Amino acid sequence: MNKTLCLSLCLLAGAATLSAQQRSAVDQVNPIIGTNKMGHVFPGACVPHGIVALSPDTDTIPHNIDGVYQPRAYEYCAGYQHKDSTIVGFSHTHFSGTGHSDLGDILIMPTTGALKLNPGTATDPDAGYRSRFSHDTEIATPGYYEVMLDDYGVKAQLTATERTGVHRYTYPADADTSRIILDMNHAIYNYDGKVLWASVQVVNDSTLVGYRITNGWARANYTYFAMKFSKPFNNYGYIDHKKPKYMGHLAKFKPNRNFPDIQGRQIVCYFDFDLGNDPTLDIKVGLSAVSTEGAMKNLEAEAGNKTFEQIAAEARAKWAKELNVIEAEGSDDQLAMLYTSLYHTLINPSVYMDVDGQYRGLDQNIHKAEGFTNYTIFSLWDTYRALMPLYNIINRERNTDMVESMLKHYEQSIHHALPVWSHMGNENFCMIGYHAVPVLADAITKGIKVDKPLALEAMVSSSTIPYYGNLKEYMELGYVPFDKNPTGASNTLEYAFDDWTIYNTAKNMGKTEIADTYKKRALNYRNTFDKNLGLARARYSDGTWKKDFHPLGTHGEGFLEGNSWNYSFYVPQDVEGLKAYMGGDKRFIQKLDSLFTMYLPDEFFAETEDVTREGILGNYVHGNEVSQHIPYLYAWTSEPWKTQYWVREIMNKMYQNNIDGLCGNDDCGQMSAWYIFTAMGFYPVAPGTDQYVIGAPYLPYMKVNLGDGKSLTIRADKVSDKNRYVQSVTLNGEPIKTAYLTHNQIMGGGELNFVMGPKPNKKRTFTPEQRPYSLTQGE
Amino acid sequence: MNKTLCLSLCLLAGAATLSAQQRSAVDQVNPIIGTNKMGHVFPGACVPHGIVALSPDTDTIPHNIDGVYQPRAYEYCAGYQHKDSTIVGFSHTHFSGTGHSDLGDILIMPTTGALKLNPGTATDPDAGYRSRFSHDTEIATPGYYEVMLDDYGVKAQLTATERTGVHRYTYPADADTSRIILDMNHAIYNYDGKVLWASVQVVNDSTLVGYRITNGWARANYTYFAMKFSKPFNNYGYIDHKKPKYMGHLAKFKPNRNFPDIQGRQIVCYFDFDLGNDPTLDIKVGLSAVSTEGAMKNLEAEAGNKTFEQIAAEARAKWAKELNVIEAEGSDDQLAMLYTSLYHTLINPSVYMDVDGQYRGLDQNIHKAEGFTNYTIFSLWDTYRALMPLYNIINRERNTDMVESMLKHYEQSIHHALPVWSHMGNENFCMIGYHAVPVLADAITKGIKVDKPLALEAMVSSSTIPYYGNLKEYMELGYVPFDKNPTGASNTLEYAFDDWTIYNTAKNMGKTEIADTYKKRALNYRNTFDKNLGLARARYSDGTWKKDFHPLGTHGEGFLEGNSWNYSFYVPQDVEGLKAYMGGDKRFIQKLDSLFTMYLPDEFFAETEDVTREGILGNYVHGNEVSQHIPYLYAWTSEPWKTQYWVREIMNKMYQNNIDGLCGNDDCGQMSAWYIFTAMGFYPVAPGTDQYVIGAPYLPYMKVNLGDGKSLTIRADKVSDKNRYVQSVTLNGEPIKTAYLTHNQIMGGGELNFVMGPKPNKKRTFTPEQRPYSLTQGE
Repeated sequence: MNKTLCLSLCLLAGAATLSAQQRSAVDQVNPIIGTNKMGHVFPGACVPHGIVALSPDTDTIPHNIDGVYQPRAYEYCAGYQHKDSTIVGFSHTHFSGTGHSDLGDILIMPTTGALKLNPGTATDPDAGYRSRFSHDTEIATPGYYEVMLDDYGVKAQLTATERTGVHRYTYPADADTSRIILDMNHAIYNYDGKVLWASVQVVNDSTLVGYRITNGWARANYTYFAMKFSKPFNNYGYIDHKKPKYMGHLAKFKPNRNFPDIQGRQIVCYFDFDLGNDPTLDIKVGLSAVSTEGAMKNLEAEAGNKTFEQIAAEARAKWAKELNVIEAEGSDDQLAMLYTSLYHTLINPSVYMDVDGQYRGLDQNIHKAEGFTNYTIFSLWDTYRALMPLYNIINRERNTDMVESMLKHYEQSIHHALPVWSHMGNENFCMIGYHAVPVLADAITKGIKVDKPLALEAMVSSSTIPYYGNLKEYMELGYVPFDKNPTGASNTLEYAFDDWTIYNTAKNMGKTEIADTYKKRALNYRNTFDKNLGLARARYSDGTWKKDFHPLGTHGEGFLEGNSWNYSFYVPQDVEGLKAYMGGDKRFIQKLDSLFTMYLPDEFFAETEDVTREGILGNYVHGNEVSQHIPYLYAWTSEPWKTQYWVREIMNKMYQNNIDGLCGNDDCGQMSAWYIFTAMGFYPVAPGTDQYVIGAPYLPYMKVNLGDGKSLTIRADKVSDKNRYVQSVTLNGEPIKTAYLTHNQIMGGGELNFVMGPKPNKKRTFTPEQRPYSLTQGE
Repeated sequence: MNKTLCLSLCLLAGAATLSAQQRSAVDQVNPIIGTNKMGHVFPGACVPHGIVALSPDTDTIPHNIDGVYQPRAYEYCAGYQHKDSTIVGFSHTHFSGTGHSDLGDILIMPTTGALKLNPGTATDPDAGYRSRFSHDTEIATPGYYEVMLDDYGVKAQLTATERTGVHRYTYPADADTSRIILDMNHAIYNYDGKVLWASVQVVNDSTLVGYRITNGWARANYTYFAMKFSKPFNNYGYIDHKKPKYMGHLAKFKPNRNFPDIQGRQIVCYFDFDLGNDPTLDIKVGLSAVSTEGAMKNLEAEAGNKTFEQIAAEARAKWAKELNVIEAEGSDDQLAMLYTSLYHTLINPSVYMDVDGQYRGLDQNIHKAEGFTNYTIFSLWDTYRALMPLYNIINRERNTDMVESMLKHYEQSIHHALPVWSHMGNENFCMIGYHAVPVLADAITKGIKVDKPLALEAMVSSSTIPYYGNLKEYMELGYVPFDKNPTGASNTLEYAFDDWTIYNTAKNMGKTEIADTYKKRALNYRNTFDKNLGLARARYSDGTWKKDFHPLGTHGEGFLEGNSWNYSFYVPQDVEGLKAYMGGDKRFIQKLDSLFTMYLPDEFFAETEDVTREGILGNYVHGNEVSQHIPYLYAWTSEPWKTQYWVREIMNKMYQNNIDGLCGNDDCGQMSAWYIFTAMGFYPVAPGTDQYVIGAPYLPYMKVNLGDGKSLTIRADKVSDKNRYVQSVTLNGEPIKTAYLTHNQIMGGGELNFVMGPKPNKKRTFTPEQRPYSLTQGE
């Protein structure tokens, strides 16, 4: 990476007022980390929580399988794989790190020479408008991306605001035709028919507006845009790859050439420019989910009268401000990983609202956000674990709005449900559980401003929808039977945790009846637990256990993205109870130890999704979120120091400053949030409690800005791979005698000091009262 | 028709307060007139200018042509052909009398017995959910429709408000299952893929909301609905005839049964009811182009707490009030034809706006109508002639809003053009010319409140779009060359007339420069007129005339929906100039005479569109609007009485009180407006002037309510087929010495008295000064 160029760009653009520290943080970010294989992050330009993620797509073309074009659901979630050698173009919307794909809206590609109105293929790029490129010419920094498109000799530079993508293309001086392709048919997760309808209206010789509706992972996703070119085009046209059924009276216009009202199903437009002596062309593209008018308002408000340089500098400054929430010391690679992780936690969820407050709700109607900012892209099965809890420390204002956005989703839901996995005004129901519930509970516990009665209503409603995830049977039997649901055991365990957060919320609100109901439900994990084996196990409707049980099997055993061995530890709400079910302290420790150390041949993981081989430690699969709390479970045992060993192993092995540096999907920042928490030395094992289980800090110094003038300094002098063990902990000089920190302790700020050493301090153990929360502790 | 039933219904419902006169007018209407063959009107329920036209569709299924389903563009414009013997169901939107089709949105059909989720075919109705029916059970009156669905024994009753369709279905007492089919895939002008996307959300056990987007004649038409059943359904489901590409995580729901979030491309839903002892089910369906929220608001505001009987009575009362604008005496058939014509003039254009003022604009964005009501369905090539002028007499308030709606269309148009043929926020560019221009000019001339500077700007802009209808060449050459445009001669003639209205408007506003430009353009008819032949003739770019010219040919001669012979009379702005071009008074009269009397064999009209054989008189084709002013052109000659002969011939022959009673498409009321004007005894030959050319009244007595307490009584004692000739005319006792009446004379009210006789009064001729306006008169 050559960051010097970008730095000079930003300095030129007036970013020189940023302090040395601010530059330092933003300079550490390496957006290329995890852009290969499973990370599914994108290298392009965005600002914190902006809906625009303007990034190169290296391939998204459907597979041709037996003559039928099938969408690529997985590999190109971010549109980009570092291994590729061609760029199709630059589209404006991307998920960050997901395990399923969509978006890639409004693709722009600069070309020269012969007119090509199809993207070509990776194996035959000359057949279409795509271009070869080399990573040598690629610059990716927060809010800025640059690459040379070798086939055309065009330099592409990208930056963004929250709702506007900003492009600069520099054509070769001798280009015969300087052209922009606007491919309204390009999409991530594309297939023949994904675009339900598209419109491009030529307002004048340098302004377009339009929209498209796609049927992808989001069943109906509306993307409106407004586009302004810095110079006029002198000719334009389009092709509709899906020949319209009927042109009727439009046919008389020869509408494929210079006719300003372009609509169709699979349209690809082109715009030809005579750039004269200055071969640069700037393009600003405002997005909206509401209207072209909203898109234009967004463009004008955020980028209207600013230069590319100004916008790039502002984007960088926004990142600098947000990233500066953490100061840290460490090696270059460590700081790159830390700040890139922080960067990844600040992309999704994303603002889904026009500057005037209008947004498209889950009911596909247009609403006005009163007193809050509406957000979308909630990957809650992943992010309730660490990302959303992290926001309760470092991103509280936004989290207030995100919680409000979830409550609006609930109000607009025909199911009367909080979001499960939602994006762009749609619910896709990915994964299992109702994990918006612990997000709300955690926010309430941690003092985020929430309409509590509405939140509790939404939590109860979301957890009692009979047709959702076999809740009918769950409520009748106390577990989700395997014969009704192939992931029934996972469902039961996850529902039970979510139910505990409802119990806790209701209890704190004095709603005894609800609390009693959900306390019972919180213990339902027992109903899918085979005490004889000490393992979670799928169960049939008649109460009998699944036959031919394979505790390590990841398919067909009643579990989702994990096996029984891993899922058996998924009782964050009642680890003491779980310990008892597993045979007590020693047996529990043995099971934990063996999870991380058991030998399994590579072939065993051949069918495991979402992780690279580096993401596996014994039978522990870090890339799938199910297990991410497990290393912290030693806190409930007589050997808490083992957490300190394993979390550092995971940090070192599974997060690396390179293209393969993410061992699994980043999942909208969840993997990265785990990194941040673990680096700080504590982790929210059970969101909804006010406790963070203490692990071991990764770096000698971190300072976390808590807002309101407060900060928490975390010191761990001489911490290293060798000195990985915590000898003692003090907060503002007072010894911490518990295995956890409370939210109030953290938010009170001051100095959290860890004394580290090369050997475990085996005297630092905890009485049951000093251990973290367990539902049945003391019962 | 059995009207007794409906009358009793309405009396029961409280309509007894209506006066005898009001009942009389509404009772005369026979909505079945013109429902066979070419009339293309629908028999169902609507209120004046309501967007809901809830009517039975007897067939709309695409033709299977060589295995490819092609839309039926023409025959089923209104969804209904009287000759058919099955009803597919009842859909909520229909054009009235058009020559191209679309709509048929949100079809409901009650069924019993086995579940069928496809419509079946006319030849095999049992294969689907459609039902046989008999016209014997059909009742059609303004605002009310009833029919027995014989296959199910279900009585269907329909009524409507402006934005809400109201259904009542009475099932047989012994029905096994009382079911409602909601076919979101049904459409008029349907084909595989017309529905881009559809959504049905089950709000509760008696409420649905949803929408669909179609790509038909309107390129993207958004129809949202809210639906309330009077009783709960106990089971529901759907089929998607276009299997979704990807169900993803939705698959786990078995979403085809009782899953409340139904979305897809070709979905047909069903709802099962247990009706208990009362076998009636009422359904209210609110429509909106904005949102489901808007649809529900519309439903609640207009029909929320009203019974079917109340709504039916109110619909009838609304019609009674509007129809009462004219009192008349005549035979039953004459009054049926008069009031049915009036009824047909009050259907389109239609309100296209929610009760809260929100509407979908031409730019497909949502707008708020401030201070006006937004209308859609403008078939302007047809309706600028007589329908819109009629509104300047009897429907002025609505016309003010319609003009404002056209100006909003202009402001939202990417072409900066007034509507040509627009519906549902779309422009389809049907036919030729820019005839919104004379509509605006006529409204301004006749004192409708219009933003004149904006109107003139819109008129000039609409007439100078270089890529529209070869205006580039028209502006360069003074005519549209045949080698560029196959209907160039027609285009030239129509542009020239429209241009005259711009000239006149600009002149009256003191805009001399614009007036001068457009006066020249108004004379462009000369450029396509072969003086040697005395006929309009197509011309090539090089100025030479079309070779192999066939003046009677209707195809390939440069004319649209007409031949040279008819189109040669299309110079309403300068009949004196035309006369001169045709060789003077005698030659002009000869040409007119021969138009009506020449013998042409039936085969000659085999390929003539839009008309029945009854719609032809010699070479005069009344069903195509081009010629409708021609009978009045005798007013500019020495034999004005010939108008009196021919208009009565046309009235008698081409408008009849039966299913075939319209000789061509009613074209959103244009054919009917011609009837009303002609019945009154005058006609707006050149909209944009303040003159109505006097013909001969058809009835002995008419009284037209002009608003503001004024009325115009038109008396023609003893008028009959025999006494068809005007002997003299007085207005309020003063003799009318001109061949025309002015708008002020008419709007001043009083009594217009015609003395009729069996022979022409050949002394009643007119000096050039007494004749109607001609641009070059006196030059």
